[in-house]
Amino acid sequence: ESTHYRAHSLHSGRLSVPEDQNLLLAAAYVSDAQYNRNVPFETSPRAIRLYYFYNHWTMQVAIYFFICVDLSLALFEEPALFPLPFLATSLAEVLCLTAFFGRLVHFAKVTPQMVFWKDMKNICIMVTIVLTLIDLIIYGSLEAVNVHSVRWSRALRPVFLINFPESRQIRRTFRSIRNTLPDILYVFLLFMFSVLIFSLMALKLFGDRGLKTVEGLPYFTNILDIVFELYVLVTTANSPDVMMPAYNFNWWYCLYFITYTIINTYIFMSVFLAVVYNNYRKHLKNEIRKLAYLKRHKMIEAFNILKVKVGTEFVVTEAQWRRLAKVVAPHISSPHLELLLRISDEGQKGHVDKVSFLRLADLLNIQVVTINIRRHPLEDWMPRVYRSSASLLVQRMVRHRIFVWVYDVIILINAIFIALDERNPFISYAEWLFLSLYIIEILLKLYTYEPRAYFGTHKMECYVMVGFLFFFFLARKYNSQQILDIVLILRILRLLRIIVSIQRFRVIVTTLINIGPTILTFGGLVLVVYYVFAIIGMEAFHGKVRFSDPNFTSPDALVCGNPALKDSAFARDRYCKNNFNDLASSFIVLMELTVVNQWHNILSETGPAASPGLLGVGIFIAFILEAFFVAYSLEKSEVETAIEKKIQELGVGIQEEEMQDGMLVDNVDAKDSGFSGDDGDNKRKDLKGLYFRIASKKYRTVDALLQQMFESEIAPEEEGPSLDEILNFSPGDLYPKNPNFENSA
Amino acid sequence: ESTHYRAHSLHSGRLSVPEDQNLLLAAAYVSDAQYNRNVPFETSPRAIRLYYFYNHWTMQVAIYFFICVDLSLALFEEPALFPLPFLATSLAEVLCLTAFFGRLVHFAKVTPQMVFWKDMKNICIMVTIVLTLIDLIIYGSLEAVNVHSVRWSRALRPVFLINFPESRQIRRTFRSIRNTLPDILYVFLLFMFSVLIFSLMALKLFGDRGLKTVEGLPYFTNILDIVFELYVLVTTANSPDVMMPAYNFNWWYCLYFITYTIINTYIFMSVFLAVVYNNYRKHLKNEIRKLAYLKRHKMIEAFNILKVKVGTEFVVTEAQWRRLAKVVAPHISSPHLELLLRISDEGQKGHVDKVSFLRLADLLNIQVVTINIRRHPLEDWMPRVYRSSASLLVQRMVRHRIFVWVYDVIILINAIFIALDERNPFISYAEWLFLSLYIIEILLKLYTYEPRAYFGTHKMECYVMVGFLFFFFLARKYNSQQILDIVLILRILRLLRIIVSIQRFRVIVTTLINIGPTILTFGGLVLVVYYVFAIIGMEAFHGKVRFSDPNFTSPDALVCGNPALKDSAFARDRYCKNNFNDLASSFIVLMELTVVNQWHNILSETGPAASPGLLGVGIFIAFILEAFFVAYSLEKSEVETAIEKKIQELGVGIQEEEMQDGMLVDNVDAKDSGFSGDDGDNKRKDLKGLYFRIASKKYRTVDALLQQMFESEIAPEEEGPSLDEILNFSPGDLYPKNPNFENSA
Repeated sequence: ESTHYRAHSLHSGRLSVPEDQNLLLAAAYVSDAQYNRNVPFETSPRAIRLYYFYNHWTMQVAIYFFICVDLSLALFEEPALFPLPFLATSLAEVLCLTAFFGRLVHFAKVTPQMVFWKDMKNICIMVTIVLTLIDLIIYGSLEAVNVHSVRWSRALRPVFLINFPESRQIRRTFRSIRNTLPDILYVFLLFMFSVLIFSLMALKLFGDRGLKTVEGLPYFTNILDIVFELYVLVTTANSPDVMMPAYNFNWWYCLYFITYTIINTYIFMSVFLAVVYNNYRKHLKNEIRKLAYLKRHKMIEAFNILKVKVGTEFVVTEAQWRRLAKVVAPHISSPHLELLLRISDEGQKGHVDKVSFLRLADLLNIQVVTINIRRHPLEDWMPRVYRSSASLLVQRMVRHRIFVWVYDVIILINAIFIALDERNPFISYAEWLFLSLYIIEILLKLYTYEPRAYFGTHKMECYVMVGFLFFFFLARKYNSQQILDIVLILRILRLLRIIVSIQRFRVIVTTLINIGPTILTFGGLVLVVYYVFAIIGMEAFHGKVRFSDPNFTSPDALVCGNPALKDSAFARDRYCKNNFNDLASSFIVLMELTVVNQWHNILSETGPAASPGLLGVGIFIAFILEAFFVAYSLEKSEVETAIEKKIQELGVGIQEEEMQDGMLVDNVDAKDSGFSGDDGDNKRKDLKGLYFRIASKKYRTVDALLQQMFESEIAPEEEGPSLDEILNFSPGDLYPKNPNFENSA
Repeated sequence: ESTHYRAHSLHSGRLSVPEDQNLLLAAAYVSDAQYNRNVPFETSPRAIRLYYFYNHWTMQVAIYFFICVDLSLALFEEPALFPLPFLATSLAEVLCLTAFFGRLVHFAKVTPQMVFWKDMKNICIMVTIVLTLIDLIIYGSLEAVNVHSVRWSRALRPVFLINFPESRQIRRTFRSIRNTLPDILYVFLLFMFSVLIFSLMALKLFGDRGLKTVEGLPYFTNILDIVFELYVLVTTANSPDVMMPAYNFNWWYCLYFITYTIINTYIFMSVFLAVVYNNYRKHLKNEIRKLAYLKRHKMIEAFNILKVKVGTEFVVTEAQWRRLAKVVAPHISSPHLELLLRISDEGQKGHVDKVSFLRLADLLNIQVVTINIRRHPLEDWMPRVYRSSASLLVQRMVRHRIFVWVYDVIILINAIFIALDERNPFISYAEWLFLSLYIIEILLKLYTYEPRAYFGTHKMECYVMVGFLFFFFLARKYNSQQILDIVLILRILRLLRIIVSIQRFRVIVTTLINIGPTILTFGGLVLVVYYVFAIIGMEAFHGKVRFSDPNFTSPDALVCGNPALKDSAFARDRYCKNNFNDLASSFIVLMELTVVNQWHNILSETGPAASPGLLGVGIFIAFILEAFFVAYSLEKSEVETAIEKKIQELGVGIQEEEMQDGMLVDNVDAKDSGFSGDDGDNKRKDLKGLYFRIASKKYRTVDALLQQMFESEIAPEEEGPSLDEILNFSPGDLYPKNPNFENSA
């Protein structure tokens, strides 16, 4: 029993945080090598090497590469964007399947059998591999005798993306959606009921009036049509067209539509958002609580493996602690290690007590950066010239705020010039002027600031400039349309600099950048959903709609190659390219359906696929709301983790650095405005040149921040619930019996 | 100084809660009449009568009546829905202005001069009255010499609605919006900047390609057109049409539109919602904190006026307390008063201490209802028959769950019949069958349940049935279209009964009903905004678009009477009735603009008016989100106010009533499932037939609940900050230095 749980906590990819997992493993390794104690899981050097190899970044990159190849096969298979023979694609697919199977075998080697076979994810992958192989064989043999069948297993490919341990973020989002469904269901049923009631009313009110729509069709005579029209009205996509015939007939009938819009669009959609957001929040909190307790649990286990009794309490000796830290973080520098030890072993008693040991994972996580306050290279080469009064004046000028403003104005003027007609030769020359002004700016800045520091703090700007110059001369040489487009975009991206120079904007942008990585998770989710729908859509609707050159006006091209589309809104608005003829087009159609407007026109040609989109958008909004609320509440206050407090107590230099003539400001400012410091006066000598910097709050992810908040609320001595309880946490336990004012309002 | 503040707290309409305001006044009155003590504001019987008269409901109804008349004058003035001569409308307006002025004078009488003149609201009203009179005179005299001018003062009319003390809810919402604006502004600027950057890119990417839209117009060649199109794309109203030409030209260009939609529609709109919601929440909390502290402050002041030293502490004597309660609530029954006194004077020491006194306003607020467990009238008239076994069987049948289910099924079948064709004689007869089934149901229920109790718990159903029967026979008699429509709607409303019979739905519906009153506030807000825009719109666009009968197809009718609209989407889609020719049409146009879709088509004919709508919708969603979160957190937990706890301590019957054969369940269940009880065993005799019921949580408003939560967190002895501090609370003070996990996630 105990073995099972320990092993589970060791290998459960779902909830592990790499640091504490490594630490537990390393603790077992260290203690094993030393005392050969009998820990309840395999910790032979070979097993640990295998485990590290499994977690090595090359292996992870390889598996992602194969997943990408597998998913992108749909581009080359019929209906293909770039057709390849079946033999080539099927060989590639078999190769991918082999890689997935190999990865799975590797995982089985480093995981206890029982845990491996209990994990649904592994079963899923195996079943999918087998099904794909079967499908390949059937399809291949039918193809050999020239019978065309359906490659149905292609819709299963996202299973690999979801089920490998590396994509736990996507799985978590899926879980959020699944957990939200039951609550949503009741709101949705009530909503559908309301739509039905209104449809009945509409049928009775307008059905017998003999009204006609703009297209001359009978208006609101069939109950199913009415339900569909009113459902579309909820998305406001056909407002006010759907109302006009009734409104034209009698003024009073608009009250019906107004009531309908208020109830079903505004109120129900808000309630829907409220339910989604509430659930998202509940489950997020639950997952974070789980993570925090699991981490605590593993750290205690690691402590128990290494503990030695000294006096009345259990501790970890300094030697063991050093060995452990070296195993976990082999590349750590020795002054850094000394610093961590000094924080962990406050009284310098030669051992680390339990409370300090539990913080080890966080300590190892703190960024420590070495900042050498470098002098400008020119100052070394020709100090006389660089420090001459003329040179100093230039430097002061460049550092002055007005210099920034002048260049902001230049950028704005440049924007106006871009908007003007380019064929005018004067404007075309002006572009050369702007280009030289930007180059002068860069040269001036390189003259004033230390080049590496400047590059470090203005990465984006430098990339844009270098990219721009590169493509600019490339375009001159080859005169290719695509390259010119890139140059244009880069030229406009330069304008973004203005945003960075305004403080209030920077706060919003920083939050958006923090959200970035998690938005990518949504990208993965969208990819999975779109992929499955695209494969199904391609099988079902492939070739139904054909796109011809827009200037080609043959009658066939006007109806998208499908006579059934004659006189439809679809053909009239030239939507022919919205088809399921290849993977890329399918993705774009699905995206258009997600954006909702005109979806009723597209839908009528393709098939129902919009509903999951709404829930996805709901979750997405919920996520951004949450991220912003956390960001806001942090803006107003300081979250101090236990460690930050500790370091401050020790006086180990959590203090705003004193700036040298604004030189360092440029080094530090744009990167983070958080803490940085050295290790106090008396220790300065030991750790010279080493700055102890805690990564700024601004750039931490929402999840990490919430986890820190939660951890700071568990007492350092608290052991937390048992592993069994942790794994079965339900969100319902989260609510306090008496909600307080702060929580609820 | 002190006088000013006291008086302000007494009369400030903005933050007062009627009970504590009355209490303070009454305390002054009682003490004055008794001891003639010199309290620092006028408390002569005449002054208090004047004050009560000012707050009397007839006066409030009168002022609302005049506001309604004043606002609805726009229906009768040129451009009019029902034209009236200028003399009539101007006379009515002068009458209204007189009424407003009278009300203001009355208010000045009951308010200290300094406070009156410091209040911006009063100045506003006076200025508006003067301006309106000036405008009336100018317009009238110009009209007399047949010169047509503009009645600009009509746009000022909503000032009266906003500025009278009775509409503090609308003012609060306006304040919310105003407070949110600065934060929104930065997001909006960033958003506009992003739109501009994308517009520049679009101009460069697509401008020189010579592309054409579906209508054959040049595509993306003018920067201003591009900005407008892309701004419309944010609302998704022209997606995917705006993308199709570029997408048809080159596959890769769709990436531009996808990026644009993700950034500007999804991310920016979410950020926008997050900022609005966050601000709404912050200000709501602040207002509630203010209210709670102000109430506490007034109660302490009242206590200080009445206090008498007994032993070491100050108390209020029982005689004073009784006199006070009688003044504040003259209609209170004496057993009820005894009960309150027993709760306030726990030890029956003959006086009430400070902590108990501070709760008096809440105590008086508790609903006390007398429930006599009545027997069925038939049981009195003919007990033998009513209690015969056949009769009891019928009663048991009707009470059985299956009876409800059977009728739910009947309603569903009825719904299907309504959806079917009515001209079929069989279905037309079926409607008679359903009608008789419903009547039988009502008769059976009246036979089983006590009629008054049944009516009390099934109000909605009874109203619908009575209304239905009334209009049904009215329609038979007069055969009018309008009446038949009402009958149809009532017939369908019967279907709503199904929702009430499912528990999960009832929770959602209850929340929506609770939100109801506050949604009306939004109605007021929308009315104000629409009114101003409608007046301006009518002056500017009156007669530009004319509506003719839809079947009339003269060339003039096809272009809405305006040759400029030839070939426009506006005329093609028959939008001619969307015009500013009278108040009602204007309101509908503004509503359509708020609903967003197709707004670009309508807008091109009318004028820019959509932007305030978005913010309003944002606040509305924020409000519903908040209401739901409070409702959710309450569903999970019990909020006990100090009084509920107190009553429970005393054992005064906070206990679920024991039900008599399900009879009382019907009396209590649907109304509220909250507490109800009698006053314990030994006191039962004294207060016979009186049930002490605390209004159920379910039906309290969000504000009231939040206030209770906050109050339960202030210690009963705490005096709170000074009045000066309370009035200057800023939302920034609300945030704790260290946000905790519960708050932030």
